[in-house]
Amino acid sequence: MVISRSLHCLRCARPAEGFDGCRTCAAEGIGVNTMPPLADLGGVDLTGYPGGPWGLPSALPVSGPPVTLGEGNTPLIRLRNDQDRDGADGPAGEVRLKHEGGNPTGSHKDRAMAVGVAAAVAAGADTVVAASSGNAGAAAAAYAARAGLRCVVFTNEAVPAGLRAQIDALGAERVVHPGTTADRNAAMARAVQEPGWYPLTSYSAPSPGGNPYANEGYKSVAYELARDLAGRRLDTVVVPTSRADLLAGIGRGFRELAAAGLIAREPRLVAAEPAAAAPFTAALRHPDRADQERTRVAAGPTVAFSLGEERPCWQGLDALWRSGGTAVAVNDEAISAEHRRLAAEGLLLEPSSAVGVAVARAQARTSGALVVAIGTATGLKGLGG
Amino acid sequence: MVISRSLHCLRCARPAEGFDGCRTCAAEGIGVNTMPPLADLGGVDLTGYPGGPWGLPSALPVSGPPVTLGEGNTPLIRLRNDQDRDGADGPAGEVRLKHEGGNPTGSHKDRAMAVGVAAAVAAGADTVVAASSGNAGAAAAAYAARAGLRCVVFTNEAVPAGLRAQIDALGAERVVHPGTTADRNAAMARAVQEPGWYPLTSYSAPSPGGNPYANEGYKSVAYELARDLAGRRLDTVVVPTSRADLLAGIGRGFRELAAAGLIAREPRLVAAEPAAAAPFTAALRHPDRADQERTRVAAGPTVAFSLGEERPCWQGLDALWRSGGTAVAVNDEAISAEHRRLAAEGLLLEPSSAVGVAVARAQARTSGALVVAIGTATGLKGLGG
Ligand SMILES: [Zn+2]
Ligand SMILES: [Zn+2]
Repeated sequence: MVISRSLHCLRCARPAEGFDGCRTCAAEGIGVNTMPPLADLGGVDLTGYPGGPWGLPSALPVSGPPVTLGEGNTPLIRLRNDQDRDGADGPAGEVRLKHEGGNPTGSHKDRAMAVGVAAAVAAGADTVVAASSGNAGAAAAAYAARAGLRCVVFTNEAVPAGLRAQIDALGAERVVHPGTTADRNAAMARAVQEPGWYPLTSYSAPSPGGNPYANEGYKSVAYELARDLAGRRLDTVVVPTSRADLLAGIGRGFRELAAAGLIAREPRLVAAEPAAAAPFTAALRHPDRADQERTRVAAGPTVAFSLGEERPCWQGLDALWRSGGTAVAVNDEAISAEHRRLAAEGLLLEPSSAVGVAVARAQARTSGALVVAIGTATGLKGLGG
Repeated sequence: MVISRSLHCLRCARPAEGFDGCRTCAAEGIGVNTMPPLADLGGVDLTGYPGGPWGLPSALPVSGPPVTLGEGNTPLIRLRNDQDRDGADGPAGEVRLKHEGGNPTGSHKDRAMAVGVAAAVAAGADTVVAASSGNAGAAAAAYAARAGLRCVVFTNEAVPAGLRAQIDALGAERVVHPGTTADRNAAMARAVQEPGWYPLTSYSAPSPGGNPYANEGYKSVAYELARDLAGRRLDTVVVPTSRADLLAGIGRGFRELAAAGLIAREPRLVAAEPAAAAPFTAALRHPDRADQERTRVAAGPTVAFSLGEERPCWQGLDALWRSGGTAVAVNDEAISAEHRRLAAEGLLLEPSSAVGVAVARAQARTSGALVVAIGTATGLKGLGG
């Protein structure tokens, strides 16, 4: 397996060194990820696409035998709309949930870690490292195990019991860093430098977002939506957003599809955030992009525990700008209410997923159009803990 | 929605009354399920089959709008074989895991409950009832919620914390029956009789297995395997077996496929059981089918907690006889070792799933052929509890 495409900064186009974003832009105080060029999907027939990142390997920046646990190809479930429930008048729109909890470790992170671990293998690494107190750590552990690599997960003390147990059961070494995020970043930077561990998540501030090779795995969400909604007009895709890896990856997938004529136009992307930590929502209130890039908010605790950043990762702003999208914040009360409403429809997801669904319902009510909400992870890990 | 096909006893062919197996055969001491006729799959093109029970609605005994949470279409994952690990000589065969943990509530039961709840809607029920201390209760709760029906789950005191929390979160009423299974069966029989609750699981002894309409949902496992392995020769399918609902359903699916010429021949089915409770393994030691039908074993506790019956449900014997299959028992030490080995490959399943994989590896080693193991449920529910 070889890494076949080089990385450049999304914002200033400089070539990248290492895996931790653009250093030039970071010196300006802006966390910007680097990325390979978009893939050319010309000639692809989506009806035969089997789903998942490895279902279209030519779109990935790594080639060779896939590292896979059967990720992707998650269901797209039509939710009850408000009209069904309330008998209200007017165009209720239609909300569908893309349920990423169906992935092997129970979250969308599997799409990224499948590709990121393959990139680690291509780079000759024997150890991968991830800083995560959540689903990314579990996914890293699983795919490292699958590839026969050692995995170290740096966590803080707030890891929920179910996730902790999952990471441990998958054989990863879990290192608790009780200090600040800066301390944890410094420790990870040292591990990348000296023993040469391969980083699957970022380790600098402001964070640019995750490993660029890994993030290419998220494009497959867009491919699956295009395949499954062929002939339908998909108006908006709502993505629960923290560092915007998923948002940016989905946006890149839709751009590739549009460039190849496989969709008529890209849907509008909407970043859904908890009100307690909503940098994208705050950023988009500024008229000037220069101010948007430099936004910083206070990030407080929220029931949507896997979300929450102080700054809008630039890759997310880029995705919103390009698609004509926006960002919407949801308070904890509304998040919890939507979480209960989903359970009452038979769907048990993590609270972060409810953020996206709450926003999607509002968008569909306003537009009367077809809106997809990305359900980021299963609710099973939070049970019995 | 109407129920379009009537039920007959699998063994004596008498028409059924109610949902609890054949009373004539029960009077002989044999628990036999009733079933609708096999579906005619003539003219079906599997390449366009989207997976899941509702991907081929004409094969189901209920018609009308589906009750669905996106069940089915689970991944088929190639496991490392013993040659890869040990460098051993000889034909190692190939083992693939059909990972049913990817279903919406995390187990294969979703395929059945999707169809069973649709049948309840067709029957005009407002309440469904399931006796389960495990995944069936969680699946019943989710699909009842999806359809807007009330759900009551009868459990015993041994329900793992994660499953208990899942059933509660999905809004089902959980009734703990501390008495014997006979007491619980009697209570369920009364509820079916008097308020007219619709039964999704059986409530008599010897158990015939689950609701016959629900069980038709399991045929989709066979359809998906035939689609995904087109052109490959699938030799054996190993199914972790308790009341043999899944085993029998998969067998029926393959028979339908073979009758329509969609597969060259049916694979051999193998029932995998924990040694602590292995009625099929015991039964098949008898040369005469009349003795096999009447086998009874002591059932002790096992790490594979969702398995364990005293008698071989007749529907399972039928599936094994028809496919030229067998049953294999695995002791708890080997189950735990396989559970750890799967985790070391990145796969976290419930211990019952490891029973099937352990048997599948042995079958592949012996035959050198392609063997599929059904992984019945995710391991996420057992974490942090
Ligand atoms: Zn830059
Ligand atoms: Zn009978």
